[in-house]
Amino acid sequence: MLNPIELDFRRKSLVPGFRATRAHAFVTTSLPNVRYLSGFTGSNAALLVTADRAILFTDPRYQSQAPQESDCEVKIVKGPLLIELSKWLKRLAVKSLAFEQNRISFEDYQQIKEQAKGTSLRAVSGLVETLRMVKSAAELATIRASVLLNSAALEMALRSFTSAMTEVDLAAEINYRMRQLGADGTSFETIVASGTRTALPHAHPTDRPISTNELLLIDMGASLSGYASDMTRTYAVGKIDAKSRQMYRAVLESQLAALNSIKPGITSAAVDRAARKVLKSYGMDKIFIHSTGHGLGLEIHERPRIGRKDSTRLEAGMAITIEPGVYQEGIGGVRIEDTVAVTTTGFEVLTPTGKELVVL
Amino acid sequence: MLNPIELDFRRKSLVPGFRATRAHAFVTTSLPNVRYLSGFTGSNAALLVTADRAILFTDPRYQSQAPQESDCEVKIVKGPLLIELSKWLKRLAVKSLAFEQNRISFEDYQQIKEQAKGTSLRAVSGLVETLRMVKSAAELATIRASVLLNSAALEMALRSFTSAMTEVDLAAEINYRMRQLGADGTSFETIVASGTRTALPHAHPTDRPISTNELLLIDMGASLSGYASDMTRTYAVGKIDAKSRQMYRAVLESQLAALNSIKPGITSAAVDRAARKVLKSYGMDKIFIHSTGHGLGLEIHERPRIGRKDSTRLEAGMAITIEPGVYQEGIGGVRIEDTVAVTTTGFEVLTPTGKELVVL
Repeated sequence: MLNPIELDFRRKSLVPGFRATRAHAFVTTSLPNVRYLSGFTGSNAALLVTADRAILFTDPRYQSQAPQESDCEVKIVKGPLLIELSKWLKRLAVKSLAFEQNRISFEDYQQIKEQAKGTSLRAVSGLVETLRMVKSAAELATIRASVLLNSAALEMALRSFTSAMTEVDLAAEINYRMRQLGADGTSFETIVASGTRTALPHAHPTDRPISTNELLLIDMGASLSGYASDMTRTYAVGKIDAKSRQMYRAVLESQLAALNSIKPGITSAAVDRAARKVLKSYGMDKIFIHSTGHGLGLEIHERPRIGRKDSTRLEAGMAITIEPGVYQEGIGGVRIEDTVAVTTTGFEVLTPTGKELVVL
Repeated sequence: MLNPIELDFRRKSLVPGFRATRAHAFVTTSLPNVRYLSGFTGSNAALLVTADRAILFTDPRYQSQAPQESDCEVKIVKGPLLIELSKWLKRLAVKSLAFEQNRISFEDYQQIKEQAKGTSLRAVSGLVETLRMVKSAAELATIRASVLLNSAALEMALRSFTSAMTEVDLAAEINYRMRQLGADGTSFETIVASGTRTALPHAHPTDRPISTNELLLIDMGASLSGYASDMTRTYAVGKIDAKSRQMYRAVLESQLAALNSIKPGITSAAVDRAARKVLKSYGMDKIFIHSTGHGLGLEIHERPRIGRKDSTRLEAGMAITIEPGVYQEGIGGVRIEDTVAVTTTGFEVLTPTGKELVVL
């Protein structure tokens, strides 16, 4: 079980959030939010939080597991969890319930509305996600371990890299090494793209053999005790042309500029601007077609988004990625990404893997 | 690109479904449903289907990929997809739109409602999922290939099984073999449970070494070209006690009884009953705590659920799993699962792996 004091603290921190909407209780069916607030890792759950109680609803498959993992009151339910939860809303005389409008399905919303007629419903967004942005010391330690594992897996996989390998072979080798090193699995599907396929920011690995004299892009993340890491590196397999080298230089400079801008109080948008400004000086801002980074934790994409429009001010304890990239269709792409912790004085790059252009 | 004739046929088959609710168009933001109807495999999309048009909305990351994969009209959108989609609702004068109440979030529903004021909204459930139950010849061929790959990966992994391995080691080996054989990845997190941990139906692999004289349960599935396979086998590592052998016998008999009941026209509930009846004769029905199986395809769990309360009548072309299991806390569990196709005359077990108790 996670530290029950930390779990209780998280739930207590949530109370002012739903109270502010004049709700007496809060429900989540989002599995990462359930896990964050209760410790439970199963695949089917609803959690009801009031000022002084936390009730976890799940199904009979988790009869043994739920009380082992969670300090909440556990109700094992046959049939729809929200029907049972609605009975508890009546039993506890909950007059008003906050629900997560971006997480709950329209159907689940309707079910609570119909079953719990005495309870009025308040739509809220991001209450738990906002708490989750700032990590506890224990969470940061787990993310750090996940990042170190991820880098070790890449290093091991690259040691067995040969030019005859396909993208799929290398991705399989990476995933194998992660598991061997103790990961739960990957935090997202490993991207291995070579040649012109590096210009696709989310390329699935294919049977394409990785050839010499081209770019190789690897974007990978481990999941360790539920916590994600995320790293991208771009390599030269043999010789690459001047244009590709220029792209690499621009992205690395952009990434370092974004990193160096990180400190408590700066907005996400300002960090994004720092990355974009450098790429603009290279005339490459138009081919940087995604945001500069994102928070990560129990999910691979969490708040804040390090993007043009995100006004979140960074705080010590946040874990984010910094990953500018440029993409030229028909030529190739370069992306460089680290996982970073925001500290009281600035930032710490957690990713130990080097960033100078490596020729494989 | 998938066969555009098949894609068009799928969308045409959907029209009577939403027309029946007096809607003039249908929207989905569910990625497997988008993929089924459009061919697009990206991670952010909304699809609008009318009687004669299909418009796919996605973001700039997929500018090259979307038109390569899909025969739909593609709109590349910066910002929220549903705001752009709402503009098209006005432009096409869509008076009434069917939305998927169990797939769409409450927030996305609200966004369409507010942005497309001239369009009334109709809640529907399972229109695409019902179409997806019965697979085309091409889909069945892919599922068959996924199943064969899955069994080959298990065989290869077991060849390198040694008694010093941990659950995590064996899971990593299985996943590695899947990728090596060409899988996109796993269709769910591989379960490797040994000893008393076999009593947890959804055990995550741990660092526990797999010891002799105990049960070993492996539940695994590959994803190939997006299609899932699913198989469970339970092994004896060395000698197991009479109770465990009895559990194995009961589950195998139960699985065969459920399989033999499969034919077009029978209900899912009747197949479930066939499995339960055998376990009852062994006094083990109370420790069979999940349903007998489930459909699979683009998702690992699809309709129908082969459970007590599912009245779906099986049809030729459905792909389902049959997986009874029994679980005794503190002792262990046994589950045996195959992937099966319903045929015009009965059923075909696609899984080639043997089911007699194997001693490792």
